Amino acid sequence: MALLFKMAEYWGRIRQVKARMEEHGVDVLLISDPSNINYLSGYDAYSFYVVQALIVSQEEDQPIWVGREEDAGGARLTTWLDDDHIYSYPDHYLHSTSKHPIDFISDLFVQRNQDQRRIGLEMGSYYLSALDYEQLRKGLPDATVINTTTLVGHVRLIKSDQELHYMRNAAANAEHAMATGIASIQQGVSENKVVADVYHAQIDGAEGIGGDYPSIVPFLLSGVKTSSPHLTWDDVLFKGDELVTLELAGVYQRYHSPLARTIKLGAFTAKEKRLADAVYEGINETLAAVKPGKTSEEVANVWSDTIRQHGFEKNERLGYSVGLSYPPNWSENTANIRQGDQTILQPNMTFHLIPALWDEDCGVEISETFVVTENGCETLANYPREPMVKQDMETTSQGGTPLMEGVVDCQWNTAEQNEVKRG
Amino acid sequence: MALLFKMAEYWGRIRQVKARMEEHGVDVLLISDPSNINYLSGYDAYSFYVVQALIVSQEEDQPIWVGREEDAGGARLTTWLDDDHIYSYPDHYLHSTSKHPIDFISDLFVQRNQDQRRIGLEMGSYYLSALDYEQLRKGLPDATVINTTTLVGHVRLIKSDQELHYMRNAAANAEHAMATGIASIQQGVSENKVVADVYHAQIDGAEGIGGDYPSIVPFLLSGVKTSSPHLTWDDVLFKGDELVTLELAGVYQRYHSPLARTIKLGAFTAKEKRLADAVYEGINETLAAVKPGKTSEEVANVWSDTIRQHGFEKNERLGYSVGLSYPPNWSENTANIRQGDQTILQPNMTFHLIPALWDEDCGVEISETFVVTENGCETLANYPREPMVKQDMETTSQGGTPLMEGVVDCQWNTAEQNEVKRG
Repeated sequence: MALLFKMAEYWGRIRQVKARMEEHGVDVLLISDPSNINYLSGYDAYSFYVVQALIVSQEEDQPIWVGREEDAGGARLTTWLDDDHIYSYPDHYLHSTSKHPIDFISDLFVQRNQDQRRIGLEMGSYYLSALDYEQLRKGLPDATVINTTTLVGHVRLIKSDQELHYMRNAAANAEHAMATGIASIQQGVSENKVVADVYHAQIDGAEGIGGDYPSIVPFLLSGVKTSSPHLTWDDVLFKGDELVTLELAGVYQRYHSPLARTIKLGAFTAKEKRLADAVYEGINETLAAVKPGKTSEEVANVWSDTIRQHGFEKNERLGYSVGLSYPPNWSENTANIRQGDQTILQPNMTFHLIPALWDEDCGVEISETFVVTENGCETLANYPREPMVKQDMETTSQGGTPLMEGVVDCQWNTAEQNEVKRG
Repeated sequence: MALLFKMAEYWGRIRQVKARMEEHGVDVLLISDPSNINYLSGYDAYSFYVVQALIVSQEEDQPIWVGREEDAGGARLTTWLDDDHIYSYPDHYLHSTSKHPIDFISDLFVQRNQDQRRIGLEMGSYYLSALDYEQLRKGLPDATVINTTTLVGHVRLIKSDQELHYMRNAAANAEHAMATGIASIQQGVSENKVVADVYHAQIDGAEGIGGDYPSIVPFLLSGVKTSSPHLTWDDVLFKGDELVTLELAGVYQRYHSPLARTIKLGAFTAKEKRLADAVYEGINETLAAVKPGKTSEEVANVWSDTIRQHGFEKNERLGYSVGLSYPPNWSENTANIRQGDQTILQPNMTFHLIPALWDEDCGVEISETFVVTENGCETLANYPREPMVKQDMETTSQGGTPLMEGVVDCQWNTAEQNEVKRG
């Protein structure tokens, strides 16, 4: 299988990781996060639910991949590593009361005389459990452990041109999935059908760009559920008068470009309109404020100042660095756009900016994924940003019968055009 | 939102969990696994990528839900808990260098005078990281920690009638997704297109049964990739002479019923036929051997004995308990069908039995999800099990052009009918 990046790029990444290890006094880095494993080695498989790792050592050029025996073939097929840098543990290490896959890794450290070194662990990773950690401490009692949860992540903050190319492909898939989903949302159609259509578009991809699985499911929130952003769909039919939020990512070769929109079937209520206006102006002003040299916090303050003029006060996290990822999350967990974050924005950083306002029984989210440019920023997807009203055809007499596919004939109005008095 | 189970069932589960806590000397149980949280409280949202927990205490009737502030509304909507049993931490606990969501939980223990108790932790959970664990030890220095990773899982082993009803719905969705996927696999069609169709069927669901997201992506493996079971699709087009494995789950309300099949586009090679015959006879014999009172190991031995007659030797894990789950895995991680597992099979246990044989460059998997009955077992899905040959229409002159949808006209032959000499 073809590598996704030139070897010069992989070596450059490893050089940067080793420089950071040096800074942090780390001799050997045990990487558990599948995104970081992929970033450095190319390994790509849905096998991260068992113990696996990439070991980067200051003493050696190539990292070592360690995983389950039945996944070693996948490591040989997808990574650039030499076969003698691929180690695998037999299946009897799994679900055993007498041994643990981490023991295999500890033994490797011992065999390589690295058991007394300063070892970096990604202690905040989903894929290094508390049990893995205790077992490793037992197996390597003389090692010094350093928490390196975000070490590789900080190298990943600035994207290469090739990475940006993949993220633009992902954004094309996001546009395609959003257009498909919004066309599918209609009175009498079930949430299930809409999400099924969104998934189809995400995976099939835009013209010629095969899609990959998203690290988070599509969020389709309607009615009261718009007030709680992480609920998932059910099989209720759209009644035709709901506020609907759709948050999804286009994905290409594990690179994500998330996108969220909120629309209204029928007319906005005064309360919804007030939220929608504030979020829409808030995201526009915030995007306009992005410039290299500014801090994340300065950008976040623009959001807070803008919505304050609409009578809202909200200081929650507004965005986060995004790119390569695996489930359960597409955030890179390094730089955040929020109060208190002093990250200085630099060209080729990429963020998912997702401002939202929630009331008791409704909410509005509008998001963009952007890349910091030399002078400002550029959103990766090109899809109408305004909170829109989608008016169905005159089909209310059909009751719950889904509309015929392909006969979508709806009017689009921006919230601005849809005259509603401020609440 | 309607609860999925009667309150009597939730109370029964809590009674059983408390009895197990008693056995293990646990005063307070801190549950991190989202499947276990759902099982006891009904909570269902894609929010498990941040710290959240359900706390079950011997002293109190109702558990306590703790999570992120913006998810508390979802807890009120989806659980049966009283509002004063829902606690949430503000967003500034997240991604902070000065505080951690776990501190909020430690503080709760202190406020409730439970900081010196014997606390059960799910140390093997994906959602209690090494960092969470260290932070909790720091916050509760006087607590005694007991590893209770599988405590709730063992209660979940035997399914109720209502759970089985949901798993049968999931199996109907699995049949639908498998039929859709196999119809979609054709010369000139991309793997992306097939997986997109599978996802659509999984989420839209079989007639009237809305589907839920699977805890693992569909595995579509073709050609050499059949030898490595956890690789994911790419945008290559089927050439028309590949071995293809499709492993997926039908899902209904988080209950999973996985199913795998292997087919051949074109004719089996002798080596493929030999693998296919062994796996097919192996799974049939193994299913026939399932009976309450037998151990998992006894069942696993039937597989090993059967394939030995075909000249194969393989003792890897053959199956695992399955039911309610969240990403990244649908295995319950309690009982396994494998050598060494002494679990005694009992009626209403449910397993995914997934025997497979891999060679250097190809592999065959056939799986069934079954429920143990009074006298044997019953497979939940009803889909032809034989390794089949799918012969495309005479369309080779069209080259890479995908076939028209809906014009599937293929012959089905079992491996048995497809005469190939043994290798």
